[in-house]
Parts: sequence; structure tokens; C-alpha cells
Amino acid sequence: MTRTSAPDIRVAVSTVIFSLRPGAESRDASIVLPLVRRTREPHEGRWALPGGWVDADENLEATASRTLAETTGLAPSYLEQLYAFGDVDRSPTRVVSIVYWALVREDLSRTAEQHNVEWFDATDLPPLAFDHNHIVDYALWRLRNKVGYSRIAHGFLPEDFTLADLREVYEAILGRRLDPANFRRQVESSGTLIPTDRFRTGSHRPARLYRYNQDVELADRGPLPQ
Amino acid sequence: MTRTSAPDIRVAVSTVIFSLRPGAESRDASIVLPLVRRTREPHEGRWALPGGWVDADENLEATASRTLAETTGLAPSYLEQLYAFGDVDRSPTRVVSIVYWALVREDLSRTAEQHNVEWFDATDLPPLAFDHNHIVDYALWRLRNKVGYSRIAHGFLPEDFTLADLREVYEAILGRRLDPANFRRQVESSGTLIPTDRFRTGSHRPARLYRYNQDVELADRGPLPQ
Repeated sequence: MTRTSAPDIRVAVSTVIFSLRPGAESRDASIVLPLVRRTREPHEGRWALPGGWVDADENLEATASRTLAETTGLAPSYLEQLYAFGDVDRSPTRVVSIVYWALVREDLSRTAEQHNVEWFDATDLPPLAFDHNHIVDYALWRLRNKVGYSRIAHGFLPEDFTLADLREVYEAILGRRLDPANFRRQVESSGTLIPTDRFRTGSHRPARLYRYNQDVELADRGPLPQ
Repeated sequence: MTRTSAPDIRVAVSTVIFSLRPGAESRDASIVLPLVRRTREPHEGRWALPGGWVDADENLEATASRTLAETTGLAPSYLEQLYAFGDVDRSPTRVVSIVYWALVREDLSRTAEQHNVEWFDATDLPPLAFDHNHIVDYALWRLRNKVGYSRIAHGFLPEDFTLADLREVYEAILGRRLDPANFRRQVESSGTLIPTDRFRTGSHRPARLYRYNQDVELADRGPLPQ
């Protein structure tokens, strides 16, 4: 209470950016995230979450956006503060990392081709730098929780999508198959989707395209500045 | 990305500690919190959340517990990280505050009598130091959200309580009256309460005492260290 100065603790921001890798013949869809290979100690050569130091004249969320763009070229459709990780032993020097999590639409995530950046399956990661495995696990847990009571899944999808597209997102997040008929009933009764009069045609029978009702917030973040 | 040093940003921890002030003849129960009167600039004389600087060898949650004990003498029954507030202009110098929120049982909150500490109605605060009004608003929002999907209300109650005690907590959090019969049905069907064979007697007819089923977590905090 009577301390008037603070010890030397540095503040960084890291971001967990989830996107969707759609399924193919031989595999289910999965949640993926971009990692950056570290080019200096500590943990040189290991993969780490994108991030960097907070500038003196920069708000935390601005640091998240800036470092994301610098390291991966990505601009997420959803960005929310996840947690502040600050354990004494998480780094050789004392660093408090304010971690954000973000969603990037699958079609936009493909535009990012940067040096030293690769996309990994979020549930099958190598040992990462610092406590970043733990951070990703926590972000996945938050994503799974949030999908139950918000329209957060929309952050993965383009403006128009089919019910099968949406179900694939839910299946990838939850890590299990969902019954198509039940899923359709639940989604249609939720009031969060608006059917369009357009259809996707292709190798399968035509599927109606939907869009999200924009009157429903992606996720209620309360009285925080948006 | 290429910055190797961090600018001068200091890290503090503050805590929003909610407790319950039971209703009386003339007023409803309300959510209250302790504030500390600042004895130095900036904002000297204003009320502020309890808190302090993070020590170099101290984890964030340990700072929350320590500064809480130092400033208010309180040891909360529930402590969870709320949010990191770090806007550039929130303080004359750059301070990132990791804010925790805590619940203190009503019977334990009365033991805390400290110099320069007073309890305030959370929904009727004077202008506080820094952005602390905004922080309290956000903590109240989180509390209201959380009461819907966890047994967080238990954090306000002693081990044994009546259904009327529990309903009073919900009413204070939600800021509205609940129908006693509906409330009893919902709580009894939730499986989170265990009836005891004891009753509270007094001026009213005897009321059965309940306790919470300890198999149900107070709130699911996911893969974070507990």
C-alpha cells in the first residue's frame, strides 16, 4: 500500500488467432492458428504466439492489432481480451502478457503468407515458447464455452453460408459430430439467422445460403469500450 | 516485432470485492464494495479500489490477495481475474492495472474495520479515482452474467442458508424481485443445493437450511491454475 515505485516488469501483448481449416475427403474440419518462429533467445527457434511489447503511447488492443498485422498480415473479424498471464517464472525476465484472442474468416486467413509464420492445428501443437501451450489451451476452452451462448461462430464464416458450413464450424470447435437435423432445428429456432433467397450449387444438391442477423451482437462484451 | 526493449509501463493490481448488505424493513438488500480513500496524488482524497504495485517476485493473484489484506483486512471466498485495463490516458503516468474481482461473505465482511476504508452501494457510487467507476460497472456486469450459469451466488453466503437468503442474493445482483415459488422450483430442480435437516427459527415460521453441493464448482474457470 505504501510502495510508491514499481519494480521492473515489462508488458507485452500476444494474440491467439483462430481460424477454420475446412474438412476434406479424408479429414474433419479443424481449428487452426498461426504461430511465429522465434529468431532470438529465449526459446530461439521455437514457435510462439504473435505479439510484441506495448508502446508507451498505445492502448492494449491497439498493440494487439499492430503486432498481428506486423507478424502475420492478418486483420481479425473479432478481437477480445482473453487474460493477463503474469506468473513470475513464465519467462527469464519478468513479463506480464496481456493476451487477446481473435477469429479470422477462413477465406481471409489464406491471404496471409509471411516469413516465419505457419498455421497449426490448435489441438495438436508442438512444445511452444514460454507458457504459450497453456495459453492456447485456455483460449480453446473460452472459445468452446462462448460458442454456446453467443454467435461467435460467425467470426469464422463469410457473410453468406450454408447450414452445413455453420455446423462444420461448431463441430470443429466442439470436437464432435452434431446431428444435422437437430442442428438445423436449433439454429432455425434461435432467431440469429436470416435465410436469403440464394442457393449454393455444385456437386451436391443446392443448399440455401443464410446470413447472420446483425441485430444480434457477436458476443456481449458488456460496458467495455468497443 | 523488432523492438527489444519495453517502454516504462508500470503494472498494478486492483480488486473489486463485492459483498451483500442484507435488506431491512425500509430497504432491499444490495451489493456493496469496500473503497479506500487515497492519501496522495493523483486523485488525493478520492475513493479508489483497493490495490497496489506488483512485486517483482510475486504472481498477479498473490498481489491481489496481499493488497486486499493490507488495505481492507479481507480474505475473499472467491477471487478471479476480471480484465486488464491499460488505456494510455487512464492515469497521469502509464499504468496497466490487472483487475481481480472477489466475493466476500456478508458475515465475514463485517470484521473488516480499517482506517480510510468504507463500504459503498455498488450501484450508487461517488466519482472515484482514475477509471474505477468504469471498472466497477464492468465487474457488476460480469457478476450479473455469471450468476446465470454458475453457483457464484454462494460466494456471498455462509455454509448454511435458507432459500429466502439465496433469493435475496439473486435479487440484489439482478436488481429486481423474483417470484418466491418459481425461484424455489428452479433452484430445487438444478441439483446444486442439498437440503439439511435443520431449520432456522425466529420471528417467522421455521425455514429449512440448505447448503451447496460441493461437487459443483463455484464457477468453471477452465484450465487456469486454481
